[in-house]
Amino acid sequence: MSKALPKRSENYSEWYNEIVKRADLAENSAVRGCMVIKPYGFAIWEKMQRALDDMFKATGHQNAYFPLFVPKSFLEKEEEHAEGFAKECAVVTHYRLKSDGKGGLMVDPNAKLEEELIVRPTSETIIWNAYKGWIQSWRDLPLLINQWANVVRWEMRTRIFLRTTEFLWQEGHTAHATEQEAVEETERMLGVYSDFVENWMALPVIQGIKTPGERFAGAVETYCIEGLMQDGKALQCGTSHFLGQNFSKSFDVKFVNKENQLEFPWATSWGASTRLMGALIMAHSDDNGLVLPPKLAPIQVVIIPIYKTPEDLAAISAKVNPIFEELKAAGISVKYDDSDNQRSGWKFAEYELRGVPIRLGIGMRDLENGTIEVARRDTLTKESVAIDGVVETVKIMLEQIQSAIYQKALRFREENTFSVDTWDDFKAQIEKGGFVMAHWDGTAETEEKIKEETKATIRCIPLNSVEEAGKCVYSGNESAKRVVFARAY
Amino acid sequence: MSKALPKRSENYSEWYNEIVKRADLAENSAVRGCMVIKPYGFAIWEKMQRALDDMFKATGHQNAYFPLFVPKSFLEKEEEHAEGFAKECAVVTHYRLKSDGKGGLMVDPNAKLEEELIVRPTSETIIWNAYKGWIQSWRDLPLLINQWANVVRWEMRTRIFLRTTEFLWQEGHTAHATEQEAVEETERMLGVYSDFVENWMALPVIQGIKTPGERFAGAVETYCIEGLMQDGKALQCGTSHFLGQNFSKSFDVKFVNKENQLEFPWATSWGASTRLMGALIMAHSDDNGLVLPPKLAPIQVVIIPIYKTPEDLAAISAKVNPIFEELKAAGISVKYDDSDNQRSGWKFAEYELRGVPIRLGIGMRDLENGTIEVARRDTLTKESVAIDGVVETVKIMLEQIQSAIYQKALRFREENTFSVDTWDDFKAQIEKGGFVMAHWDGTAETEEKIKEETKATIRCIPLNSVEEAGKCVYSGNESAKRVVFARAY
Repeated sequence: MSKALPKRSENYSEWYNEIVKRADLAENSAVRGCMVIKPYGFAIWEKMQRALDDMFKATGHQNAYFPLFVPKSFLEKEEEHAEGFAKECAVVTHYRLKSDGKGGLMVDPNAKLEEELIVRPTSETIIWNAYKGWIQSWRDLPLLINQWANVVRWEMRTRIFLRTTEFLWQEGHTAHATEQEAVEETERMLGVYSDFVENWMALPVIQGIKTPGERFAGAVETYCIEGLMQDGKALQCGTSHFLGQNFSKSFDVKFVNKENQLEFPWATSWGASTRLMGALIMAHSDDNGLVLPPKLAPIQVVIIPIYKTPEDLAAISAKVNPIFEELKAAGISVKYDDSDNQRSGWKFAEYELRGVPIRLGIGMRDLENGTIEVARRDTLTKESVAIDGVVETVKIMLEQIQSAIYQKALRFREENTFSVDTWDDFKAQIEKGGFVMAHWDGTAETEEKIKEETKATIRCIPLNSVEEAGKCVYSGNESAKRVVFARAY
Repeated sequence: MSKALPKRSENYSEWYNEIVKRADLAENSAVRGCMVIKPYGFAIWEKMQRALDDMFKATGHQNAYFPLFVPKSFLEKEEEHAEGFAKECAVVTHYRLKSDGKGGLMVDPNAKLEEELIVRPTSETIIWNAYKGWIQSWRDLPLLINQWANVVRWEMRTRIFLRTTEFLWQEGHTAHATEQEAVEETERMLGVYSDFVENWMALPVIQGIKTPGERFAGAVETYCIEGLMQDGKALQCGTSHFLGQNFSKSFDVKFVNKENQLEFPWATSWGASTRLMGALIMAHSDDNGLVLPPKLAPIQVVIIPIYKTPEDLAAISAKVNPIFEELKAAGISVKYDDSDNQRSGWKFAEYELRGVPIRLGIGMRDLENGTIEVARRDTLTKESVAIDGVVETVKIMLEQIQSAIYQKALRFREENTFSVDTWDDFKAQIEKGGFVMAHWDGTAETEEKIKEETKATIRCIPLNSVEEAGKCVYSGNESAKRVVFARAY
């Protein structure tokens, strides 16, 4: 049996890294800051993709694909956008290597690009350049496009899934005839993300608006959803931007409206990335490893035979096979692990580590008694049940687990959300962790000072916040509502 | 009504470009050689992806994701591989831009990478570097991995879908304990590609082996499938490579075999790309536009009402709605186009252009008669049928169309496959087009000469070729079997 995981309560960071590694989710690659997503991790990501993609399509969006490269001049066109991304761009300057005469390769100086190409950090510019050809009339609107893609941002400090140089994501880019429609779309997609993160990832989120200082570079307004991790730090789980007419103006995209006048369309963009894998791990896992909500688990049920002789295994398999088939027929992803290279105890630990929601264990005694052992990953409880009704038991339990994981995370968030009114309490609470609801005077200066002194940022101004007169926790100036502060990933 | 397409028989190249454009499949982007895949084109690609992905999983493969970037030193490790790809590499040399002081951006000279990164042209090197950590024992084998990704090859002459600087593809990378297993895998995946191209794309292919001169750089043997386009040129539709131990040796990947000895594993790689979109268009389309096999059509059936007044439309819609629902329930992708911005004649032409396999037209007269008009895209025939049984008619017809398109393409290939025995006949036939079956003496020299003089390449040595003593069509030397020559995309 391999050594135990680091304890979550003792070294959260190491605990996270070890789960990523030992549950076989991903690993760092030889390229600085770029990760390899391993098959088990990728299977979870595929489930996320499928669910999100279905939701995007159900809200009228279509997928398309735009180039990996952005000409430098495109990035220059929207000033704030350029400023926001220039410092973290991978730049392609040449298009050929040649022999260096010593058995190796060198960049061919004769193959220098006239204009450098940026590996897309996000695709607003390349997409709005294309939209110039796609949008002429109000009949072409709304234009509702999504892209699944890899993007590159040259991060200095990287962390697997949470902050990597290359990551996978989807980016929606829409164009609308009116400001109102674009704002509605921005909010609709925030709602889609909320729905997904809460109902699939089982992680409760706060919907809100970013402060100007935390806005997406080039956006008029950035909406976000924020989740709370088990170490009391916040993690942004998706953003939806109202871009106003910034990109349509920068790329000179106009349409003829119903009154036959030329107008600039209104834009949104919205994205969620493999960062969600980090959120999923951090939100639910425990000292035994990964805990997966059933809706995203590549294997929802594992069946493990406990036996000594090949004859025992044959007898167990004969009993298991129809159950296996019945579970499969019910649309449940099930694995029967009758491999003989490890003992059942090792297998139990291994599937726990990998977060498989339900484990069924069956031995010779069970055969005699007509029972099977059902173990729940989230609660680590187990019980012996009648084998005859086990498929129904499993179906119900999968739903219970999905719900229980969410409820547990919700309870954790409620227990770790604090209203704070003095600067001392604020500092102390930020140090301890959690969402800290405090009054803020609305200035960038105060926001910056608080960040400097406590490393806490304003995660968002919640959409559902109530008006409540108060004094800014830092400056003592007037404030009309509380905002959410936290240290964040 | 927009102007007619160029005629396939008069200007095949323009005809192809116009179909790509007017069926709204893709367009060239602002980045040289990179395309934008538009929603309708992408929907076809998604169907291809889903079908292939299911086939890969059914043969035991798992998806994973590896970095976009390949360190230059990795590319250097396998000599032939390096030589094959060095000349077409996009090279990242810097990781930051900065203000140029004139309102623009420039590459920051202080942000030069110590080692240049190549945007992956294919991922053997980065993947085998990772496999070093994944493979220790025979128990880790076979390792059966696939990746869906974008890759970049700096092509000088590009052509939308067929040869683009960036393209989308999947690349399988497997490792095996024995040579035989690896060869079997190579052949199995060639079979999967054949199956997909023939049964989904409705395009018959020849399975074969590439000559050494046409082999993938770094492979021991390259298998391929070759299809024949309507202009008589060949198009390679997928390749499967037996890589021997070339990459395991270059990246020092070893495993302990069952006899407890260290060995290098045996490798395969195999890929199919958005090039298949080009094949699909070129194989079946006609002077009215795209012709899609039903299995890959985003819209399989379009229903168009023919009406003058809103009351007419309401009456037609009342009749159509249950049919629409019934078709949907049968798993058929159906669209009811009751938009009022175009006349029905325009719509007929538009859906023809987009290759929708079946069009149902219904007007007031049909309502009276209890009929509906069923039009087949592939044959351009139409008939009036009883509306009551139309769902069943459609189901059967979709299968007929899938089969008919394949049969037509097969007939075309048979009529355009020629056995040729003299050099004069060879040259004349290559000029006219088609697959030319001819004897070849097996030397690279002859192959090269033939290419120089006729622009024809050896597409493959067919797997099912029969032994037949003959004389090389160029050199007159002995030959044991015919190979397939053609001009190719």
